[in-house]
Amino acid sequence: MLQNPRLQTLINTIEPVSTETRAAAQARIDSFVKPPGSLGKLEEIAAQVAAISGTISPAARKKCTIVMAADHGVIEEGIACAPQEVTAIQSINMLKNITGICVISAANGADLRVVDIGIKPTISHPGLIERKIRPGTANFAREPAMERCEAEQALLVGIEMVKSLVDEGYNLIGTGEMGIGNTSCSSAMYMAFSGASADVVVGKGGGITDEALSHKKQIISSALALHRPDPDDPLDVLAKVGGLDVAGMAGCFLGAAHCKVPVVIDGFISAAAALIAYRLNPLVREYMIPSHLSAEPGYVYVMRELGLEPMLHLNMRLGEGTGCPLAFGIIDAAIGMLNGMATFEEAMINRDYLVDIRS
Amino acid sequence: MLQNPRLQTLINTIEPVSTETRAAAQARIDSFVKPPGSLGKLEEIAAQVAAISGTISPAARKKCTIVMAADHGVIEEGIACAPQEVTAIQSINMLKNITGICVISAANGADLRVVDIGIKPTISHPGLIERKIRPGTANFAREPAMERCEAEQALLVGIEMVKSLVDEGYNLIGTGEMGIGNTSCSSAMYMAFSGASADVVVGKGGGITDEALSHKKQIISSALALHRPDPDDPLDVLAKVGGLDVAGMAGCFLGAAHCKVPVVIDGFISAAAALIAYRLNPLVREYMIPSHLSAEPGYVYVMRELGLEPMLHLNMRLGEGTGCPLAFGIIDAAIGMLNGMATFEEAMINRDYLVDIRS
Repeated sequence: MLQNPRLQTLINTIEPVSTETRAAAQARIDSFVKPPGSLGKLEEIAAQVAAISGTISPAARKKCTIVMAADHGVIEEGIACAPQEVTAIQSINMLKNITGICVISAANGADLRVVDIGIKPTISHPGLIERKIRPGTANFAREPAMERCEAEQALLVGIEMVKSLVDEGYNLIGTGEMGIGNTSCSSAMYMAFSGASADVVVGKGGGITDEALSHKKQIISSALALHRPDPDDPLDVLAKVGGLDVAGMAGCFLGAAHCKVPVVIDGFISAAAALIAYRLNPLVREYMIPSHLSAEPGYVYVMRELGLEPMLHLNMRLGEGTGCPLAFGIIDAAIGMLNGMATFEEAMINRDYLVDIRS
Repeated sequence: MLQNPRLQTLINTIEPVSTETRAAAQARIDSFVKPPGSLGKLEEIAAQVAAISGTISPAARKKCTIVMAADHGVIEEGIACAPQEVTAIQSINMLKNITGICVISAANGADLRVVDIGIKPTISHPGLIERKIRPGTANFAREPAMERCEAEQALLVGIEMVKSLVDEGYNLIGTGEMGIGNTSCSSAMYMAFSGASADVVVGKGGGITDEALSHKKQIISSALALHRPDPDDPLDVLAKVGGLDVAGMAGCFLGAAHCKVPVVIDGFISAAAALIAYRLNPLVREYMIPSHLSAEPGYVYVMRELGLEPMLHLNMRLGEGTGCPLAFGIIDAAIGMLNGMATFEEAMINRDYLVDIRS
């Protein structure tokens, strides 16, 4: 199905997580001094990280969110709340540590990488990772967003980014984006896969008027009628109505699974990217940890498709990856629980302290 | 209404948070480089902490969860999943840093204090804060849980604990508990206030059989019929069907409001304590930050009464205060956002980096 043989091999060689280690971790958690199951999703996350890492004593996490930045030709149609140059400006602002993802990452001891995977203007900053596939997608209202081989290259960029972070010692990856117009391509992709209508999927993104929302729905529906992407071919969907940012993020999910590290889903755009990766190899889902319930309406549908539920209900809709560092804190706690909590047996050897326990 | 004049004064002199500072903080957040409102509850929390602290640049948080530990006479009726001595044993285990609250606190850079406010056996440990009001409550199935003056003393213990932590420099407080049987007293208190039936409120706590659940509901309903606590008199409810742990926690909420520091609600028992504090002075609610959606059925009713919604959906039901350090991480991020994010004006001065922004 894929043209690039290296990409095909990378995707095909993704391995399942260790069910034995997951069971051993859960057995250990069940022996801890608490009612069985009473730590809920913390237990599930701890067992998942154990299963991914292949050890019931997973190491502390070194955390990084990868921000894929790209422009979207479809904003020519007037479907976004901000001008295109905001993609470039905010990408630089991220490197200056002043945007939402920066301050939240700092609060959670997490790092950030910003990748120019398709920003339209040529920009330059010492911190920017330059992997531009093309200067923004084409306007998918009129022509395919990109060529199939470009979508494949963008997937490889994401995979390589994660591989290089893992080489640096990172073992917990977040997926973020900066791309004015990317709720439109994410909605279009989910509609292409599911056949769902614009009325249930498409939302206001960063914040547009009711009139603009109605226009956005019409543009996306017409584009799908024009291109008729094949729902059984994720690359066809991605190339025709997707985005370079989303493709790069889908690559991050694939790369994390390839490298056996957990990877966090942010909001709607990140979830759409997760769905692309899942459609390319369903095993990738076992490496995914959801974060927050995005306010964008399409989010819940994508997550239902993935069979995942978010743990943070914060009514956020900023994007940038902002849900990831918040989830990192919960994941750190889950791993701390698995490594540090005592078993019933260990914990009951405390009778010395009970002066008159039988009183 | 209260016998103790010092307690009455402490409660009466609680001040509202600063609506001016809240508005100034929200105005600042609205000037940040993001779509308005797109950080959802992070924005609300940041504005709330600003309003509580009286500054739009609130200091970084020094965090501590206070665990109130006490026994409950009603467990004689066979309504709990664990024997009474577990209260004492787990209180000591908390000081040995091996229980759920310990490992989660450690992962979030938060401290812990364990207060013996009514553990039945006499226990001793250098880290234990000894403030025992009485060795456990009476069995409220047969007689009032405690005397009214004991409930007042327990409130004072909570207030004094927070005051002393604030003196030590802590400025974010969590509320935890250890007390086998305390979902029973919490359910009874909420039922007394609301008139709700046992079938909708009472749950399995740490984990009991269906048969034991049915028995637990009957014991609580009978106790309320026996004592007929006055729903307009929170002290009457607390004394007749409450617990020393819950009373101490209610004091923590009052103390936090008195000292103008934010205070986090954990699960069902903590929420019941928050409701007592709220009924004593509704201004206390402005200082409260909810954490996780407890799996105990009564939780959502109590929170509805308080007009608060949890942000973490983790299906947890351990208690001990375990939701608090998880919420601390989110609160830290909210404060980091308020202090560190750039305004649109500051952020747009980046055109130097845009080599061909007009291309």
